[in-house]
Amino acid sequence: MSILLKGGLILYDTSYHPTRADILIEGDKIVEVKRNINKAADEVIDASHSLIIPAFINAHTHSPMVIFRGLAEDVPLMDWLQNYIWPAERKLKRKEVYWGAKLALLEMVHSGISTFVDMYFYMEEVARATLEVGLRGFLGYGMVDLEDEEKRRKEIKETEKLHEFITKLNSKLVKFILAPHAPYTCSLDCLKWVAEKSREWDSLVTIHLAETRDEIKIMEEKYGRSPVEVLKEANLLNDKLIAAHGIWLSKKDLEMLASSNVTIAHCPASNMKLGSGIFPMRDAIDEDINVALGTDGAASNNTLDIIREMRLASLLQKVNTLNPAIVKSEEIFRMATINGAKALKLKAGIIKEGYIADIAVINLKRSHLLPLHNPLATLIFSAKAGDIDTLIVSGRVIMLDGEVLTIDEEKVIDKFLGVGI
Amino acid sequence: MSILLKGGLILYDTSYHPTRADILIEGDKIVEVKRNINKAADEVIDASHSLIIPAFINAHTHSPMVIFRGLAEDVPLMDWLQNYIWPAERKLKRKEVYWGAKLALLEMVHSGISTFVDMYFYMEEVARATLEVGLRGFLGYGMVDLEDEEKRRKEIKETEKLHEFITKLNSKLVKFILAPHAPYTCSLDCLKWVAEKSREWDSLVTIHLAETRDEIKIMEEKYGRSPVEVLKEANLLNDKLIAAHGIWLSKKDLEMLASSNVTIAHCPASNMKLGSGIFPMRDAIDEDINVALGTDGAASNNTLDIIREMRLASLLQKVNTLNPAIVKSEEIFRMATINGAKALKLKAGIIKEGYIADIAVINLKRSHLLPLHNPLATLIFSAKAGDIDTLIVSGRVIMLDGEVLTIDEEKVIDKFLGVGI
Repeated sequence: MSILLKGGLILYDTSYHPTRADILIEGDKIVEVKRNINKAADEVIDASHSLIIPAFINAHTHSPMVIFRGLAEDVPLMDWLQNYIWPAERKLKRKEVYWGAKLALLEMVHSGISTFVDMYFYMEEVARATLEVGLRGFLGYGMVDLEDEEKRRKEIKETEKLHEFITKLNSKLVKFILAPHAPYTCSLDCLKWVAEKSREWDSLVTIHLAETRDEIKIMEEKYGRSPVEVLKEANLLNDKLIAAHGIWLSKKDLEMLASSNVTIAHCPASNMKLGSGIFPMRDAIDEDINVALGTDGAASNNTLDIIREMRLASLLQKVNTLNPAIVKSEEIFRMATINGAKALKLKAGIIKEGYIADIAVINLKRSHLLPLHNPLATLIFSAKAGDIDTLIVSGRVIMLDGEVLTIDEEKVIDKFLGVGI
Repeated sequence: MSILLKGGLILYDTSYHPTRADILIEGDKIVEVKRNINKAADEVIDASHSLIIPAFINAHTHSPMVIFRGLAEDVPLMDWLQNYIWPAERKLKRKEVYWGAKLALLEMVHSGISTFVDMYFYMEEVARATLEVGLRGFLGYGMVDLEDEEKRRKEIKETEKLHEFITKLNSKLVKFILAPHAPYTCSLDCLKWVAEKSREWDSLVTIHLAETRDEIKIMEEKYGRSPVEVLKEANLLNDKLIAAHGIWLSKKDLEMLASSNVTIAHCPASNMKLGSGIFPMRDAIDEDINVALGTDGAASNNTLDIIREMRLASLLQKVNTLNPAIVKSEEIFRMATINGAKALKLKAGIIKEGYIADIAVINLKRSHLLPLHNPLATLIFSAKAGDIDTLIVSGRVIMLDGEVLTIDEEKVIDKFLGVGI
């Protein structure tokens, strides 16, 4: 299978210098990027009025939580979890998770996301939905043992089951990830087990980290240490770890994360909406921490729109420091693309020969995207999910001119129409 | 002319309680809101899968500045103005302002905006564009005299000319507004002239106020007073004044604005992007100040999407106070609707019998808007410009199912395609 994208304006390589050229895709790879490629291809896509960008990587989400979009509003994280989300989750059925994941995957397709890191339960259902839609998912069972040994055994069993399930799938797109929920909801024994399995299975790990001030207090009381220090003790600080949020970090914490090559998945919308706090982005980047971007779940966002997430990430830093130059658009765009790829050990996230063909195409013939003085700024500050017309994941066209080709979108939408009010 | 909107879910009155009903519009008014209206109408619109909301009021913008979208990125306000925007504006031609305004108006239509407050120059061109598209514009010539008497005479002449031009139009939709740029760019004499004319012409006034810390410093050095105190001396503090931004306000300033019934047009995206600061929203509301919402110009936003503006307005306050309950969605929605109407003395901004028929319709059959547990939260945190399908302004259908009916959108877009890069 080969695809030829004709005449688009490409944000090329890591310079993102806007370049007018064609892109030839063969199999799952970008094989050629140059003007006027004169080769036959199975599919030719006219991109002459379009901006072509690497597809996005959503480094932290809980896809089935779209089901709870708008369920609990204007409340802080602990209240939100304990009084709204956890009770609702206890009633959640396997089948609902499947349909929720499908809805979430559709939303991510329209947002230009090729790849997502997911933490939830009934993850076999998410795997099924991911395969149907054709995105790339790193799927983890969210372990919560709360110092209860029996619960820990159950969580370990669930994790082993998911690992076996995904291993047997032998899929190029659905991958396993270990997903202990957080240092304050997982015992040290649980975290140590995860570290062991990460080495044994050669698996990535994702966790929530330093999301609220309460968490810091809890860890201080329990361990007399910061959550980062506890992860170090559990042997989890290494380049396989993707830590979501990372808001309440000391200078020492940042240095530890940097020296051990941990990735932080920054989730500004959720952090703002739950009043959790402001990620120290400049310090993290200056420490050379790999910062990726995530939407978090739609229950606290309330979307899976990674373009709006980029805008927020930038705007929040600018206003918080009263310095509009504090972070550059290139840095923000990297978070949503190549930094996520780096965390996931994927040769993806940029448009360049030899890289995985994960590509999003934006038709520029829209009143809010013109004129185009600065394509990268327009992408980050003017565009939004829904502006993505065509999405290619691993060399396969998932959406063409706004129409999802892999599943029946209408059917999924009809399933949720009338749910709620 | 009558319009019947059938079977939509309405955010009704000021309670915004989601109500399933029909809406009958006759002329420019909403005449009936109830279930199963059995009357003939010239146009019947099926809204059975739609959310129906009052159209938005953009209380502060510079519409033609869409032309400069993305032109100057990552720089602070004074640098942005002096080194990028003002030099570009000196070269701007009358015709470009006309086309820029058309592009901006289209963007506002897709954002569900019925009414906007605009400050710029060549405003006759903006008036022309506004009449063509069919929105309601309060159009002001932005006066800047910089203590130069000759320049002041010129600015006064321009303002008088625009006042005469708009008065002669005798339009229900295009209205005049006085628009001195800011207390630091207008002399006290200029501001006093504006106050006089506001009474003489019974005109509203709009101005930038307390946008940056620099402005406070400049005013302190020049007058030994705050910008609010200077406006008081100029006799501008009254219920005809719409002051944009209002970030750096003392407790005393807030009390003065409250007791004189001034409206603040809050512009979070622009304030964040330029690193200007954070509007003290809770204090302002608690002082009973009428707070409206504006997008500012697209050069510092970089859109005219008032839905994204609502989301930002809420998220910024939540994270800044670490209190997710600091501001409720109802309060945010009021800013973007009825508070703007109040500032502009319009009987609009809510859906209720007897009010002006300014209505936006959102088709809910979209993956990012479902399920619908909380329509108001979904509107503010999940929706965005582009989700508006149908827009009715003053009883006239401006856009139906995403298609703008009043002007040729394609022609405007083609004009800007290829401008920039």
